Amino acid sequence: MKIYRYEENPLITPKDVKPYHPGFEVIGAFNAGVTKFGDEIIMLLRVAERPISHDPNIVKAPVFNPDTKEVEIYEFHKDNPNYDFSDPRVIKYASKDKFAYLTSLSYLRIARSKDGRHFTVEDKPFVYPSNHLETFGIEDPRITLIDDVYYIYFSAVSPYGVGEAMVSTKDFVHVTHHGMIFAPENKDVLIFPEKINGKYYALHRPVPKSNGSPEIWIAESDNLLYWGNHQFLLGLREGMWDDGRIGGGAVPIKTERGWLELYHGASKDDRYCMGAVLLDLKDPTKVIARSEKPILEPEADYELEGFFGNVVFSCGAIVEGDIVKMYYGVADTSMACAELSLSEILDSLTYL
Amino acid sequence: MKIYRYEENPLITPKDVKPYHPGFEVIGAFNAGVTKFGDEIIMLLRVAERPISHDPNIVKAPVFNPDTKEVEIYEFHKDNPNYDFSDPRVIKYASKDKFAYLTSLSYLRIARSKDGRHFTVEDKPFVYPSNHLETFGIEDPRITLIDDVYYIYFSAVSPYGVGEAMVSTKDFVHVTHHGMIFAPENKDVLIFPEKINGKYYALHRPVPKSNGSPEIWIAESDNLLYWGNHQFLLGLREGMWDDGRIGGGAVPIKTERGWLELYHGASKDDRYCMGAVLLDLKDPTKVIARSEKPILEPEADYELEGFFGNVVFSCGAIVEGDIVKMYYGVADTSMACAELSLSEILDSLTYL
Repeated sequence: MKIYRYEENPLITPKDVKPYHPGFEVIGAFNAGVTKFGDEIIMLLRVAERPISHDPNIVKAPVFNPDTKEVEIYEFHKDNPNYDFSDPRVIKYASKDKFAYLTSLSYLRIARSKDGRHFTVEDKPFVYPSNHLETFGIEDPRITLIDDVYYIYFSAVSPYGVGEAMVSTKDFVHVTHHGMIFAPENKDVLIFPEKINGKYYALHRPVPKSNGSPEIWIAESDNLLYWGNHQFLLGLREGMWDDGRIGGGAVPIKTERGWLELYHGASKDDRYCMGAVLLDLKDPTKVIARSEKPILEPEADYELEGFFGNVVFSCGAIVEGDIVKMYYGVADTSMACAELSLSEILDSLTYL
Repeated sequence: MKIYRYEENPLITPKDVKPYHPGFEVIGAFNAGVTKFGDEIIMLLRVAERPISHDPNIVKAPVFNPDTKEVEIYEFHKDNPNYDFSDPRVIKYASKDKFAYLTSLSYLRIARSKDGRHFTVEDKPFVYPSNHLETFGIEDPRITLIDDVYYIYFSAVSPYGVGEAMVSTKDFVHVTHHGMIFAPENKDVLIFPEKINGKYYALHRPVPKSNGSPEIWIAESDNLLYWGNHQFLLGLREGMWDDGRIGGGAVPIKTERGWLELYHGASKDDRYCMGAVLLDLKDPTKVIARSEKPILEPEADYELEGFFGNVVFSCGAIVEGDIVKMYYGVADTSMACAELSLSEILDSLTYL
């Protein structure tokens, strides 16, 4: 499959983003939701900021306080036996396989472009943590345009777990909050851009604890706020590139052959690739075809190295004719874009 | 607090239930949903059956096959190093803290009574596993009557995780299936018996993996099928009787002081008690008061010993004036009932 990575990649890096919090540094501008808005392409960046630390033995955790609306900083010495600091993204409990804090606070910030290659980042957050379910930050937005409303949904992270919240906007200025639409633990929600047989559909990715794996489910709704009739859709494949965890990526693309979903799959050792799955046009609970091999793998240096390397992770694509402009986060650090052929992707799938 | 345990306790034991599957034994008739139906009290029992094993070194796992509609039996030798057989309820993976199979298959079966003390168990299942999300069984039903429809919801267990499915009936003969209403991992769903400010509400108990705990959340709906606006409601209390896991129990009881929810709380060493929490009448997302001490603890011999001892676990209560007839599963084995005073429960709570 031909892959055309933009010469301008990475399109946005942390250096392009001015910290919003005094005394913080931007360590990530990545995993952006993408949409056309008028004559612009908007990337809604996940911006991750962390308190600057001058002591390598101190790990800091920023936490949004919903009462004061301020960010508080907790400090941990790396000698603290109660915690495990081995993953740079989180502070884990030493005694159990759960995280206690994140090492950065993420929020959503707009970057605008006329050509899809050169972006201007706005000075302030567009969506910022606002309640006690978002105290550890909000992450990995996706954007679905339905009629004239942009629905934006993202992971909301707090001590209560990771769920999916939603806001909406018509103008990327005014925002309406709709609360948490998928309860913990859930990530990677994707809302289809139109009703199918009278119902809205969404892909989602529960993370069950007692049994089961991080796999893709589908749910239905009649108003986008309330969801039900949850069905299992797509699972891990042992020994393949997507045997660790999978989740929806871009908003499903309507094609003649079916709904094409670009999804991410990680191996057990956390190498994140992008693949594709084709769902029945009239019944998206039915899988028609799936990638045997990734359609995009981490290969460029900006994909291999960064805050958390070996990651390509798309949250949005723009389709123009046969061209899929897949925007994707790289190495949990920056944004990039690659163009692929829609028909080549469809032809590459293994039909069930 | 005065607690009147029925002299007839346990009201139903496994011996009272004829196995539905040839070659199986009933090991549990417990955690029943309860409702009034005409002049009867109906207990919708969770009946757990397991294949009879003549070799103590063989552990069997019954699995419903949704294609053939038959139950298949997998056998495991206790020497198998890939599995951990230490919990009699489940076969765990040795390498990770997840279960691979259950050792019994549960389904729902009706028991009827005129006096609430003497029950007749029907010969056949009322709700039985019917799809690929229920292959390990269905468990722990609750019943909410709204207008003239009984909504019955229960845990659906499969290799894909544990979620909450719903059916409805008007006559306890004909059943309509509504699919899975809360995605994995979720249990202990309770639907309020009327709309509040134009919305239906449900308590639910997600089990997040990456962080957070098994705690009680509340969601809203406009049609009982699709749910959203998930909010955290009630948490664990470190060092107390409910510091391990909590979940809703009986359908919320409307009182002058608020919605009274009888919930279960387990300690870290899996001792299950019943407690109570009072929610605002007009806004059930607000907690008004909560039990400091349990309102019922495992004390009777049938509560202390059984398939999984030290458990009282209510899924339903009948309220008559000031009397709360709390039906509850004991030791994951049988059913019992205790009468408590509604006003005494309310007076015993600690108001926030």
